[in-house]
Amino acid sequence: MTLLFKDTLKTLPPKPESGEFHMAKVTVGPMPYMSVMPTVLVGANVKGMPNYMTAAWATVACLAPPMVCVALNKERYTVKGIEENRTFSLNVPSAGQVVETDHCGLVSGTKTDKSGVFHSSYGKLKTAPLADECPVNIECRLFTAVDCGSHRLYIGEIVEIHADTACLTDGKPDIAKIKPIVYAQAAYFGVGKEIEKAFSAGKKYRK
Amino acid sequence: MTLLFKDTLKTLPPKPESGEFHMAKVTVGPMPYMSVMPTVLVGANVKGMPNYMTAAWATVACLAPPMVCVALNKERYTVKGIEENRTFSLNVPSAGQVVETDHCGLVSGTKTDKSGVFHSSYGKLKTAPLADECPVNIECRLFTAVDCGSHRLYIGEIVEIHADTACLTDGKPDIAKIKPIVYAQAAYFGVGKEIEKAFSAGKKYRK
Repeated sequence: MTLLFKDTLKTLPPKPESGEFHMAKVTVGPMPYMSVMPTVLVGANVKGMPNYMTAAWATVACLAPPMVCVALNKERYTVKGIEENRTFSLNVPSAGQVVETDHCGLVSGTKTDKSGVFHSSYGKLKTAPLADECPVNIECRLFTAVDCGSHRLYIGEIVEIHADTACLTDGKPDIAKIKPIVYAQAAYFGVGKEIEKAFSAGKKYRK
Repeated sequence: MTLLFKDTLKTLPPKPESGEFHMAKVTVGPMPYMSVMPTVLVGANVKGMPNYMTAAWATVACLAPPMVCVALNKERYTVKGIEENRTFSLNVPSAGQVVETDHCGLVSGTKTDKSGVFHSSYGKLKTAPLADECPVNIECRLFTAVDCGSHRLYIGEIVEIHADTACLTDGKPDIAKIKPIVYAQAAYFGVGKEIEKAFSAGKKYRK
């Protein structure tokens, strides 16, 4: 046994209590990895004009009060708007808007005016532009920002959610109608088939 | 026009510059919403025993150094382990592990010993249990935690990523092989078909 194979061998040979368990793990190094992520457009007013940038490093940050967070490279044009106004939006594009969505990730607001890619509205906050064509808009007031290194994690309290009436089921946004874009390994994917209900499938568990 | 319909009417009638644009938006209220999320198992040692809890409020927090974040209810058993050891893991289960995964979200470590749901290994950190059966394990050292209200957002620096050799393509974790679980509206979904490549589809954009 040499040190070279230490990591591969870590979970080998199969543990005595499980004759069927043979997964061989290797270390692939630290990297900014998450299995799957949402695709959103971060909206901010920069110099008084709406700007949208594509982001995937976003999730829910709190239940009560409801909050979301999004990690943005500190050099991004969008960051200027969030820091100036202390407001931003996360807009959920539909699969049919993948070209516009990717465009907003390819070009920077420093060089290209992206205010015409979507129509913009304003909700309760008057400085967080909402992309009208996106089926869901999450309107946020900046709660705090955490400097992590290359990126700053912006945590925003959700002030309001605006949704296309055609995308609601029982008053809530429905992915079957929204057709949100899943982001993984530098590509956009649809949502696949439902596997199981949460808080339910686990009842079948037997040790 | 009454105040009652103010929000519905906000984006109506269609703006003059776009005769085709007729989306009707309504406000659905602030709620902890994100279109789609990853399904992960947060691993932590609590009282010296590995414990795994299901979470979906997770994403990448930084590129350099690589970091992830996960929002956890402050009352969770897992939280005790993260705060004691200042280490945790995010484990990516495969679609075939949905029952075990949901089980870890249904029962609390305060009442049920979950150390036997998966085999556990330890990597570079000696207190962040890695669920051997999960195809990808993200080993994290706590960078900081942000108190948001009901939830605390744990931001961890990725120390190492361990992956099943059978789930790699060109040395990187591949969703086609991992079959990760997408979480949305209290259900688990597979990843759907690839729609477009990122940093590419946007080149087709014409104003």
